[in-house]
Amino acid sequence: MSEQQAMPRLDGPTGGPYLRNTWYAAGWADDLTDQPQARVFLEEPVALYRDADGKAHAIGGRCPHRFAPLGAGCVIDGHLACPYHGLRFDHTGACVHNPHQGEAPPKVAVPSYPLVERYRILWIWMGDAAKADPALIPDFGWLDDPAWVAVRGMTIAEGHYELYSDNILDLSHANFVHPALVANAFTIGERKFWQDGERVFVRYTHQDDYLAEALAAMMGVAGRKQDFIGEVTWNAPATLYFDYRAGDPGTPAEGMTVLKSIHAFTPETGGTTHYLWATARSNALDDAELSAVMQGALEHAFEHEDAPIIRDAHRLMAGRDFWDMKPLILSGDGGGVRARRMLRRLIAAEQGTPSEFEDDTTN
Amino acid sequence: MSEQQAMPRLDGPTGGPYLRNTWYAAGWADDLTDQPQARVFLEEPVALYRDADGKAHAIGGRCPHRFAPLGAGCVIDGHLACPYHGLRFDHTGACVHNPHQGEAPPKVAVPSYPLVERYRILWIWMGDAAKADPALIPDFGWLDDPAWVAVRGMTIAEGHYELYSDNILDLSHANFVHPALVANAFTIGERKFWQDGERVFVRYTHQDDYLAEALAAMMGVAGRKQDFIGEVTWNAPATLYFDYRAGDPGTPAEGMTVLKSIHAFTPETGGTTHYLWATARSNALDDAELSAVMQGALEHAFEHEDAPIIRDAHRLMAGRDFWDMKPLILSGDGGGVRARRMLRRLIAAEQGTPSEFEDDTTN
Amino acid sequence: MSEQQAMPRLDGPTGGPYLRNTWYAAGWADDLTDQPQARVFLEEPVALYRDADGKAHAIGGRCPHRFAPLGAGCVIDGHLACPYHGLRFDHTGACVHNPHQGEAPPKVAVPSYPLVERYRILWIWMGDAAKADPALIPDFGWLDDPAWVAVRGMTIAEGHYELYSDNILDLSHANFVHPALVANAFTIGERKFWQDGERVFVRYTHQDDYLAEALAAMMGVAGRKQDFIGEVTWNAPATLYFDYRAGDPGTPAEGMTVLKSIHAFTPETGGTTHYLWATARSNALDDAELSAVMQGALEHAFEHEDAPIIRDAHRLMAGRDFWDMKPLILSGDGGGVRARRMLRRLIAAEQGTPSEFEDDTTN
Repeated sequence: MSEQQAMPRLDGPTGGPYLRNTWYAAGWADDLTDQPQARVFLEEPVALYRDADGKAHAIGGRCPHRFAPLGAGCVIDGHLACPYHGLRFDHTGACVHNPHQGEAPPKVAVPSYPLVERYRILWIWMGDAAKADPALIPDFGWLDDPAWVAVRGMTIAEGHYELYSDNILDLSHANFVHPALVANAFTIGERKFWQDGERVFVRYTHQDDYLAEALAAMMGVAGRKQDFIGEVTWNAPATLYFDYRAGDPGTPAEGMTVLKSIHAFTPETGGTTHYLWATARSNALDDAELSAVMQGALEHAFEHEDAPIIRDAHRLMAGRDFWDMKPLILSGDGGGVRARRMLRRLIAAEQGTPSEFEDDTTN
Repeated sequence: MSEQQAMPRLDGPTGGPYLRNTWYAAGWADDLTDQPQARVFLEEPVALYRDADGKAHAIGGRCPHRFAPLGAGCVIDGHLACPYHGLRFDHTGACVHNPHQGEAPPKVAVPSYPLVERYRILWIWMGDAAKADPALIPDFGWLDDPAWVAVRGMTIAEGHYELYSDNILDLSHANFVHPALVANAFTIGERKFWQDGERVFVRYTHQDDYLAEALAAMMGVAGRKQDFIGEVTWNAPATLYFDYRAGDPGTPAEGMTVLKSIHAFTPETGGTTHYLWATARSNALDDAELSAVMQGALEHAFEHEDAPIIRDAHRLMAGRDFWDMKPLILSGDGGGVRARRMLRRLIAAEQGTPSEFEDDTTN
Repeated sequence: MSEQQAMPRLDGPTGGPYLRNTWYAAGWADDLTDQPQARVFLEEPVALYRDADGKAHAIGGRCPHRFAPLGAGCVIDGHLACPYHGLRFDHTGACVHNPHQGEAPPKVAVPSYPLVERYRILWIWMGDAAKADPALIPDFGWLDDPAWVAVRGMTIAEGHYELYSDNILDLSHANFVHPALVANAFTIGERKFWQDGERVFVRYTHQDDYLAEALAAMMGVAGRKQDFIGEVTWNAPATLYFDYRAGDPGTPAEGMTVLKSIHAFTPETGGTTHYLWATARSNALDDAELSAVMQGALEHAFEHEDAPIIRDAHRLMAGRDFWDMKPLILSGDGGGVRARRMLRRLIAAEQGTPSEFEDDTTN
C-alpha cells in the first residue's frame, strides 16, 4: 500500500441528500497516473484507476472482502488489485481474479461509476448509469485547447459544498476577501442574475475604469482604462464557469481579452469538499513568469483566503440547515439563492419528493 | 481576512446551562488592537473590536448574511466590517452599512453584549443587558495600579470551566502538580472555607516556616522563616482572586509582602475554556529578571502542569455530569463544593427553575 | 505530572461488548519502570505501576476524587499517588493515604485488576478476579528464554481490535501488504484451518522453494530452497502466536530453523487498539546487525504497512458491525471467521445471552 492520505471519517453528519444523476469533477486527469487513487465522493468510497490502455475508471472504493480502500491498491493486467488481499476488479466492478490457491474469483462486484475524461478533467456520475450522457458535461473545451494556458489546483477544503458554490456566485466577496487581487471589480457597476433552464447566471459589467492591479497585470492592460464583463455560469450541482473579459472602452465582448475559470465542487463528506479550480488566459501564452504569478496568487486566494472563511462559516452553522438559519438575503445573492433553490428542486425531482421551492422561472 | 485561528467546532455536547447575568473575562484589553477578534463564549460566537475612539465593543460573531466570523473582519469608519461581503455593524449590533450597489443597509442586527474595559481586562455580559452593572465586576484594581507589576497569560485550555475553578479552590493540588513552585504550602497549616453572600472563600494560614523556594524568591525572603496567609475568593461563575502574603513571624497581615493573582475562566465550548491569569507583586518592581522568571514559572505551572491534568480529568469524565459521577469529597473540597452548589443555585434562580442544592448559608 | 500522552477520548462509540474473563497483554514488562503508566483498556482507564518490591499492579485509572489519571502519578512508599491531590492507593485499589491535614484515608477504592508479569509481558484480567488463573495465559516462554533473541514493539493503532487479529489470521495479506518482506509465502502451497477447544489455528505449508529474500536472510538460508511451515494460533480474544519454520527439503518440522512471533491486540477505545508484537530467532543470536534489520523491517511492516490499511478499513466501515456489512468470505478467511464466531460465543456465554453463532466444532 502506498503512503496515501488516510481515508476521511465517514460516520459524521450527512451533507446530503445529493443530486446523483449529474457529472461531478473527480480530479485532474493527469493527476491520475499508474497509481490509483482512493477518494470519497458524496460520502461514498470510490477508487479511480487507469487500465492497461490508460483509460480511467471509477469503481466502488471499499473491497467487499475486508473493506480495504481499493484505490490504495495497484493495477495488474489492467485490473485494480485490492491492496490488502489482492482480489482484482475490472472496470464494471466485477471481481475478475482471486490470487489465492488458484480459486475462481468470487461472484461479487463493487459499484461501478461512469467516468469520462474530458477537458483534462475526470467526470464521475454517481447516479443511474443509464442516464450518464457525456453530452451533459458542461463545456470546458478551453482547458485542453492549446490556444489557452491554465494555472490550476485541487484541494480538499472544509465546509459544505454549497457554501463553496455560493462563494463563486457572489463575486462581491472578492472585494473583501481578495482585496489585493480583485479590489472592487464586482461591487461596482452593473449586475444581473438570471436562470436559463437548469443553469444560473450572474453577470457583472463595468465601463471605462481601471481594473484591479493584479487583474490588469494578468491581462496585460496595466494602466489602461477598460470595459469589462464578468459572467458566472452555475451548472448543478456545483460546477461553475467564470468568464472575465476586458477591453479598451467600446470594445465589443467578442474582441475583449478573456480569462476563463472553472470552480468545480464535489462533496467528499458532509463537511468537506473537493475543490478543483483553473484559470486560463489566451494572452502571453509563453510567459512562464506570468503563469507562476497567477498560480501563486490564485492558489492563495482560493485555498488560503476563501477556504478559511468558508470553513469558519460552516463551523458557525454548527450542523444546521442553511435555510433553517434564516439567512439574510442581499441583492447580491440573486445567483446563490437561485442555484440553491434549483438544486433543491432537482434533488426533490430525482427522489420523487415534493420540493419546498417552486420554480421561479420568472427570475 | 487575517490569519486568525479557526473557529472551534460548535456541534459538540453543551457544557451549560451557563450563568448569563454576570461578567465574564473576555481577554486582556491591550491584546485587542485595531485588529478585531473572533471568539466563542458560552458556545456563542462573539466579535470583539475597537471603534474609531478606541472603545472596545462586543457583538454577535456570526454574520446574519452568510455566517462568516465577524471578528475576523476589520474596522472601517468605526464600524465592524464583515470579512466576507463587507456589511458593517455598529456597537449595538445593527447593520449600518451595505457596500453593495449603494443600497441601504438591511434592517438586521446581531446581538450586542455589554463590554467594559476595566483593570486591563475586557469584561463581557452574556445576559440581560439591562442588568449589566459594571459595579458587579470584582475588584482587580491592582492590575492597573502602578504600585504593582504583573506577569500574565491567556490560553484556551481543554476541559469544562468548573474543573478549572475547582483547581484554584483547592490549592492543595499545588503540592502534587507544582512541587517545584509551591511545595507543601497548602497541605500543611490551617485551612478554612466559607461563603459570604454569593462569594466563596478559602483561606490557608501557616506560621514560622520556610516558604517553598520559588515562592520565597518571588517575595524576596529566601532563607527566612515566615508566617503566611493564602486566600482564594471565588466570584461566580468562575473568576477567582488569590491573595498570598507572607512576613517575618508575627507580622500582621497588613504588613506582609503580597502576591495577588487572578484566574478567570470563561467557557468557550462545552469542553474548552478561556483561561486568563496574572500574578502581581509590589516588591522589586524594577527587577525584570524576576519578572521573567515568574512569567516562565507561572505559565509553565498553569498551562503545562494544571491544564494537562484537567484535560485528562475532563476526558475521563467522558461527558458525564460531575455530580452524577458521585465524586469523593475530601475536606479540602470545601471551597469547590460550595462554589459548585452556589453556581447551580444562581443558574437555577436565573432560569426560574428549582435547584437541587439548598442554600447552605450555615457553612 | 509527567508529560504523559493525553488520555484518549472515551465518549465515542463502543467497540464492545468485550470478553472480560481473559488475559489481555497490557504492555512490555520492562517498559513499566518506576514511572507508572496511564492506559485505557476495554474503554476503562487503568493505572499500571510497580510497588516498592518492583511488583507490577493494575488498578482503576481514574481517581474517585477529581477523576485525574492515576497512572500519571508516582509511587510513594510502594503505593500509587494521584498526580492531582496525592491520595494514595494500594494494589487492591483501596485508598491508603490521605496527605491532607493528617486525616484518615477515605473509605473508597478504585477497581483492582489481576496483573501477572510473565514472558516479559504484563497480562491484565479485566473480568472476575476469582477466575483469573495465570495458567490460562498462553505460553510465550520463548520471550524470556535466553536461547531466543527478539525484536519487538508496542503501539496504539487506529481500528477495531478484531480487524487486527483478522490480519494475522489471514497471512495471505502479506503478499500484498508486505511484498518486500514476505512475497508469496502464504498465497502458495497448502493451507489448513481448524479449531481445538477455544483456540483457532491456521497452517501454511510449502515445499522445496525459495523463501522470500528478507525471510531467508533472517533465517540464514539465502539462496537455498526450503520446506517451510507457518502456523498461527489464535487465543481469544486477540492474542496470536505465529510459528514460522523452514529447513532444507525433507527436514522434519522439529529440525527446522524457527521464527516465533507474538501479535497481541488489546482494545483501547472502540476505535483504537494496543498492538504488542515481537519476533524471535534462535539462529545468529549475537548478530546485532541482523537484529537491527529485523527490528526495522518488522516495525515498518506492522506499524506502517498493516496499521494504515486497517485504519482505513475501519473508517470505511463507518461504525457499522462487521457481520452487518455482509463481508465476502474467501477460502483464506477460515481462521478469521472461526475466531470471530468463537469470540462471539465466548462473549455471549460470559454474558449469559444466546449467541447468533452455533458451535462449529466440525470445522
